Amino acid sequence: MKALVLEEYGRLVYTDVPDPEVGPDEVLVRVRACGICGSDIHGLDGSTGRRRPPLVMGHEAAGVVEAVGAGVAEWRPGARVTFDSTVSCGECRYCREGRINLCDRRRVLGVSCEEYRRDGAFAEYVAVPQRILYRLPDGVSYIQAAMVEALSIAVHAVGRVPVRLNDTAVVLGSGMIGLLILQVARVAGCGTLVAVDVDPDRLRRACALGADVALDARSEDVPARVAEVTGGRGADLVFEAVGVPETVAAAIASVRKGGCLALVGNVTPRVDVPLQAIVTRELTLFGSCASSGEYPACLDLIGRGQLNVDALISAVAPLAEGALWFRRLYEREAGLMKVILTPAAAGEP
Amino acid sequence: MKALVLEEYGRLVYTDVPDPEVGPDEVLVRVRACGICGSDIHGLDGSTGRRRPPLVMGHEAAGVVEAVGAGVAEWRPGARVTFDSTVSCGECRYCREGRINLCDRRRVLGVSCEEYRRDGAFAEYVAVPQRILYRLPDGVSYIQAAMVEALSIAVHAVGRVPVRLNDTAVVLGSGMIGLLILQVARVAGCGTLVAVDVDPDRLRRACALGADVALDARSEDVPARVAEVTGGRGADLVFEAVGVPETVAAAIASVRKGGCLALVGNVTPRVDVPLQAIVTRELTLFGSCASSGEYPACLDLIGRGQLNVDALISAVAPLAEGALWFRRLYEREAGLMKVILTPAAAGEP
Amino acid sequence: MKALVLEEYGRLVYTDVPDPEVGPDEVLVRVRACGICGSDIHGLDGSTGRRRPPLVMGHEAAGVVEAVGAGVAEWRPGARVTFDSTVSCGECRYCREGRINLCDRRRVLGVSCEEYRRDGAFAEYVAVPQRILYRLPDGVSYIQAAMVEALSIAVHAVGRVPVRLNDTAVVLGSGMIGLLILQVARVAGCGTLVAVDVDPDRLRRACALGADVALDARSEDVPARVAEVTGGRGADLVFEAVGVPETVAAAIASVRKGGCLALVGNVTPRVDVPLQAIVTRELTLFGSCASSGEYPACLDLIGRGQLNVDALISAVAPLAEGALWFRRLYEREAGLMKVILTPAAAGEP
Amino acid sequence: MKALVLEEYGRLVYTDVPDPEVGPDEVLVRVRACGICGSDIHGLDGSTGRRRPPLVMGHEAAGVVEAVGAGVAEWRPGARVTFDSTVSCGECRYCREGRINLCDRRRVLGVSCEEYRRDGAFAEYVAVPQRILYRLPDGVSYIQAAMVEALSIAVHAVGRVPVRLNDTAVVLGSGMIGLLILQVARVAGCGTLVAVDVDPDRLRRACALGADVALDARSEDVPARVAEVTGGRGADLVFEAVGVPETVAAAIASVRKGGCLALVGNVTPRVDVPLQAIVTRELTLFGSCASSGEYPACLDLIGRGQLNVDALISAVAPLAEGALWFRRLYEREAGLMKVILTPAAAGEP
Repeated sequence: MKALVLEEYGRLVYTDVPDPEVGPDEVLVRVRACGICGSDIHGLDGSTGRRRPPLVMGHEAAGVVEAVGAGVAEWRPGARVTFDSTVSCGECRYCREGRINLCDRRRVLGVSCEEYRRDGAFAEYVAVPQRILYRLPDGVSYIQAAMVEALSIAVHAVGRVPVRLNDTAVVLGSGMIGLLILQVARVAGCGTLVAVDVDPDRLRRACALGADVALDARSEDVPARVAEVTGGRGADLVFEAVGVPETVAAAIASVRKGGCLALVGNVTPRVDVPLQAIVTRELTLFGSCASSGEYPACLDLIGRGQLNVDALISAVAPLAEGALWFRRLYEREAGLMKVILTPAAAGEP
Repeated sequence: MKALVLEEYGRLVYTDVPDPEVGPDEVLVRVRACGICGSDIHGLDGSTGRRRPPLVMGHEAAGVVEAVGAGVAEWRPGARVTFDSTVSCGECRYCREGRINLCDRRRVLGVSCEEYRRDGAFAEYVAVPQRILYRLPDGVSYIQAAMVEALSIAVHAVGRVPVRLNDTAVVLGSGMIGLLILQVARVAGCGTLVAVDVDPDRLRRACALGADVALDARSEDVPARVAEVTGGRGADLVFEAVGVPETVAAAIASVRKGGCLALVGNVTPRVDVPLQAIVTRELTLFGSCASSGEYPACLDLIGRGQLNVDALISAVAPLAEGALWFRRLYEREAGLMKVILTPAAAGEP
Repeated sequence: MKALVLEEYGRLVYTDVPDPEVGPDEVLVRVRACGICGSDIHGLDGSTGRRRPPLVMGHEAAGVVEAVGAGVAEWRPGARVTFDSTVSCGECRYCREGRINLCDRRRVLGVSCEEYRRDGAFAEYVAVPQRILYRLPDGVSYIQAAMVEALSIAVHAVGRVPVRLNDTAVVLGSGMIGLLILQVARVAGCGTLVAVDVDPDRLRRACALGADVALDARSEDVPARVAEVTGGRGADLVFEAVGVPETVAAAIASVRKGGCLALVGNVTPRVDVPLQAIVTRELTLFGSCASSGEYPACLDLIGRGQLNVDALISAVAPLAEGALWFRRLYEREAGLMKVILTPAAAGEP
Repeated sequence: MKALVLEEYGRLVYTDVPDPEVGPDEVLVRVRACGICGSDIHGLDGSTGRRRPPLVMGHEAAGVVEAVGAGVAEWRPGARVTFDSTVSCGECRYCREGRINLCDRRRVLGVSCEEYRRDGAFAEYVAVPQRILYRLPDGVSYIQAAMVEALSIAVHAVGRVPVRLNDTAVVLGSGMIGLLILQVARVAGCGTLVAVDVDPDRLRRACALGADVALDARSEDVPARVAEVTGGRGADLVFEAVGVPETVAAAIASVRKGGCLALVGNVTPRVDVPLQAIVTRELTLFGSCASSGEYPACLDLIGRGQLNVDALISAVAPLAEGALWFRRLYEREAGLMKVILTPAAAGEP
């Protein structure tokens, strides 16, 4: 089959590789769409150390069941599916409690390291364990389904904090995840939504996707403006989706006494926080990592049109042109959000 | 009446002052015991700026109702009482939600600042609003009742985190608050309790009060030892009751994935935290400030003997000797924990 | 002033009465709209025993501040306001915890009994304590604001249960409260919504207001149909807004294992429930009564157009015609939902 | 090996049977103790229909690992273990959320029905899947470990309700489960504990195990006495561990406004409840069924001596005498609580 292979760091090649082997509990999926994740882009230069060439990356995918392993009873060829980007063990204490994102033996598709290696979905076919498959509802396209992994992160983050109807929420960062959080916060019952970024284009997009107030952090005093919007009180909820010291500081300064923050971004490994403010204002900070079983909800939300993932897709391109798009994303081309690669030249997207 | 007056910063004098005036909704309490709080000690040199001489400090007190204001129907002279150290407004949004520690107009007894001034309980009598009074259960002495304010902070902190039966808890700091948290954690259902301090005497005390493991942070690697105790997993709950960068770092490094930290101490205004660890290990950090309605529970816990506050009382001394004890506490005399002053020369303590 | 007076059971008269007296902490409101509540209709014949003539009923109202008592600093004449239908004491343990609907001394406006009597808002003016007033956001009309009390019951009910994004919810009863719950469930993040009633007109209305599935309980097996809609699993959440044995039974039979029910209706004092099913299927049943601080959220939800209260208003009529409308409601005229009376002949509704 | 075989309904025989076969993921356990459960006793006459002869019953057991299947890496012969009474599938939505007691394909050891059959632990050996094994802490005897299943039900029930420190709890029923709930409620931080039963012997036992108040429901008005104990307020928490109409009624009448009930008993399939009281007093009723991952906590609680399971063991008897003890339990011999059968004539209990 054709695949986009990371042959060595910095070199992605669209080439022929053997078809994947399918284990007894696995399903062979004919890939119809696979999104390029930020972690894939970092994989290109080996900076994270978790993707070792040669490797087929890609874990935000959807497609059609082509064949099933001997032990698979629940799935049949022809089923339209997406699948979890990670394989959790199902046996550790975290898996048993439903917190599969904390699994002691969690593996990501399209990643290779010392202990394991699993080729991903930048290919015509990918083999995945049956237990991580999800059926696509009618009306959800493969392209949309390739957005589910990103959406699931947003749904998980909003699920981490105790939302009360009409809560005011601030979302720091209007990139892919921030814009999804913004929309999910609305679906979950939040009232006034404040989007924050340093890029006017992104802020315009935030407004189009539901932000009531958009603040440019370069020219505005974010905590002061949030105070103004909330009658001096501060926001009930703050979502930090950037992860640099300035945005974490703004997040903590924008929340009301007794309020909650979700920490989703983590670009900077360590940050300085105002301990006394956290204690005396009795804040709660919730780390939020990846997702944990939210795929079916995400598919339904897209299927019912409760939120807009299409607006975040910058391009749908043939897999054969994958190297080019990786390069453009790697160079942080302005305005690019999600790029989705499609192995099939033709057919329903 | 006699009172211990902060005449100017650095000068406490046991002297005569007028009896307090009693408002229509207030109760005059004959003080039988009043503990010296850490904030009172800082008040001695004016470092916090919240106690301005001349002032009678003291907010951890118990006594007997001596007289009641015209509008007081529920209380009668002779009642044995303690009272909240703070007066919340009862009207702001926080008060209406039961989070009186976050009250927008919260006032502490024995504090004076620009907007208000309320003399405290280092005196023979103190006037307090009726709505903050609590009746002492039989079997709780005035001395013990003077420990309720400190205990309420511990009960509040434990109440902030979601305790599950048998959770392993680490308590960083074995001072007054740390040792109370340790005991409350046990009462609330925690399993293995790990106490941490840098003072072997305090650690011995922690063991006597229920710690299963005591770690000296000067000679032991706290996170490594916690991992050892928990089968490599980390603690379910960590209570940080010191508030310096080293203990906050140890707290975060000791908690398991998905675990919870209560931040109670805040000696250092700001600390550096590992943002990525908080996000990817999905930790939750709960600031915890003062208390919020826990006095009745504290009184009952003491009355039933479910925990030991007596062990934390270093001295019970006459109010007339108050200046001396403030001095010894101010100079951080080794081994001194709570000192309680009693205006009455004689009578039931 | 003019008022609609319940002179004796069964006799409502539009007549002159003295203007209300305004206490020092009270505000005089010029009434612009006041809805007829089901409890007012029962008050007409004295069946509940809580409304004793002579009395002015009415507690779902909005208007303009006309004058303020001596102790009122926060409100000024001209302010557009609505107010809580109940006056809670602010001092009992429930009030202190924010559960004002459970207040030990809760009083309803427009009710009179042995211990107290407060005239309500079926009049040109009504006096209300300042602490229960809420400002109307721009864009919320007086008519809409008169719907807030009903809406707050729905918001409270949805807030009682733990909603997870995309939960399937069944609402039994498509009357006023049921149709509001249906809409609030959507705003709070529910996925598939199933409305149940015995009246095809009401079910049509439910569909127009967001129900994905509408079940006629006279011709359909509700639990079986809910199972069908949920892939055999049952609903995550069920709201019972009728309160007769049949609907409670259907509610319990429609919920999934581990699911939650909110009990909002209570027409029948006692019902028979399947104890073993509740235990072995580990259901949770939440009683939900009135509301508890949800007015501001309701006003904002209406103001932002997140739900539709207008569709539930059957008629807006002059207060002078109140007796007629009470009669039509008392006789359960088909299709009548909320009727709102307006004292003012002219002006902004 | 020797086993106690239910040869037909009503006939238990101590006889020779083949040793159990051990699957690749299974462990062979040499049984050292196995408790007689109420469901086993009902199994004797076939009234529940879930135990079909010929069958070896028994699911409350502990012992020593004797041999392990080919796929078992974590366990070695000689390990002291107990095991879950049920085998959950690990794959259904409930298992994935950690609610294994609600598993769609849950099987109980020592039960046989149409779809499956698993011999239980009233035998010298039993084969169990490795994933349900738990290691015994030092200091927990096999006899004590045979109490873990019952204890886990109590821990689960207390975990179902939101316990706040010092909450007053009423436990209806002072049988095995009631007396365990009573103790667990104390460990979890409850304050005043009220035990209720109709048997003075059981009430004496309740007092010995920590009840502060014991009420004989035959001679006392339970709700009235609970009101008295709680200053007129009612209990914060009520545990119903009987499951007949009278006790459910008393439970609902004893809880305070806004309080919580755990429904654990279910002797009667259906009961009549006061719907209006549940709604207007805003009660929450939590069904609680079996347990869901609480075994390790239970073992630790016993190991640390935080509660007393020994007091609930009426007899430890040789497995050879099992039929006799089943008979005595079946005939409800007064005072008999847990009976534990030991296959081994000698050795460490």
